[in-house]
Amino acid sequence: MPGAIIPNLSVDCVIFGFDSKELNVLLVERTLINEQDHSVVFSDFTLTGNHVQAGEDPDAAAVRILNDLTGLHDIYLEQFHTFGSTQRLLKKKDQMWIHSLGLNIPDHVITVGYYSLIDCTSVEITNHMSRNVRWFPVNELPELAFDHLNILQKALEHLRIKLKQEPIGFELLSEKFTLTQVQRLYEAILGTTFDPRNFRKKLSQMKYLIPLDEKQTAVRHKPAKLYIFSRDVYERTRKTHHGFLI
Amino acid sequence: MPGAIIPNLSVDCVIFGFDSKELNVLLVERTLINEQDHSVVFSDFTLTGNHVQAGEDPDAAAVRILNDLTGLHDIYLEQFHTFGSTQRLLKKKDQMWIHSLGLNIPDHVITVGYYSLIDCTSVEITNHMSRNVRWFPVNELPELAFDHLNILQKALEHLRIKLKQEPIGFELLSEKFTLTQVQRLYEAILGTTFDPRNFRKKLSQMKYLIPLDEKQTAVRHKPAKLYIFSRDVYERTRKTHHGFLI
Repeated sequence: MPGAIIPNLSVDCVIFGFDSKELNVLLVERTLINEQDHSVVFSDFTLTGNHVQAGEDPDAAAVRILNDLTGLHDIYLEQFHTFGSTQRLLKKKDQMWIHSLGLNIPDHVITVGYYSLIDCTSVEITNHMSRNVRWFPVNELPELAFDHLNILQKALEHLRIKLKQEPIGFELLSEKFTLTQVQRLYEAILGTTFDPRNFRKKLSQMKYLIPLDEKQTAVRHKPAKLYIFSRDVYERTRKTHHGFLI
Repeated sequence: MPGAIIPNLSVDCVIFGFDSKELNVLLVERTLINEQDHSVVFSDFTLTGNHVQAGEDPDAAAVRILNDLTGLHDIYLEQFHTFGSTQRLLKKKDQMWIHSLGLNIPDHVITVGYYSLIDCTSVEITNHMSRNVRWFPVNELPELAFDHLNILQKALEHLRIKLKQEPIGFELLSEKFTLTQVQRLYEAILGTTFDPRNFRKKLSQMKYLIPLDEKQTAVRHKPAKLYIFSRDVYERTRKTHHGFLI
């Protein structure tokens, strides 16, 4: 039966976006309304997620769910961890919410976590299935449903590790960017600041950052040179690193 | 109902072991016997795995399965990826095997992959539920069932990345070890060789390798100094690394 769900299995997507200043995450509002007096019982936010369908690869489910929410195709998507605590859905608020949906969801659902990377300046997301959808800076999160804070924190850990291994950060920038924007991006994800001179030195070793004969327009300061990221050059110049942590 | 399985969800464990020379993986033989003439239809190997039970955290399922196979407790265990291709179980041999078990297993089972690290010189494993269990060097693998070769390769990728971030390799060594054994271990996992002098220099910066007033015994060559790994010292001296790949 197409579309039948696997009751015990879902996917959840942590959608990271960079707005040239901060690392943000896309969250969906969840509001429980009292059926009698129509008052708001509670309101908080969730990651975007859904059940996996029978005969569906969870990777495909994540693509489907991301596309449903953002309308975007070919988004960078990385599976990072599967969350299976038996306590995931048992908080009182979460049980009230599940009950209000009138669906037959078991008390224990295992969820496969994915994160995706978006340049949030190039996407407009307003609401989804009449639920409010908003970007929040990862340092100023609202109250989150279920174990979604835990999932989000773990996604951020994985993103940080991955960023040190592969040049994935460019998924979060516009096609053309300045070196200062690259530095802001690395600082926002890693939660640190870099000395501009040392950082420039590192960037200058990245053969896959290609300078253009083009500069920023419509900026108040002195316009900076624009660059593009070449995955092709990266793939052909990458080295195998055998170093290890001390 | 305790013990009832979630039909679409399993865990598989890649058990790595080091024997002071090579990196090995523990595999379970799978032999299909023709019911009519009792001839062997085929024989190959699988990872160890099983279905997740209703109300069971997959992490707990992995611990249960590892303990069932090895009798060991407190093994290093790391969840690394969930495999959900709809084609995972559909090869003809695999379908014949599933059919022969007489169990009602669906065509599509999603499996959560874990790897664990064992010092294989300190464990004796012979067989399990009348199935042959054997260590194989990761460079000389037999034919593997299902998508288990893919799972194993992905586990090895994750192990290599993790080894560069954290000193997990010591899980694969005896409590007391020589620096040459550490070098062999890193070489076996990373599939490379290191210059001994440079490698020693790196090791000498690892404050968490504690030299003992003890040397090897029962060796033919000049006995080398023994060391222990201190997780406590590691935790208290580790630095946050903000470097990233060029």
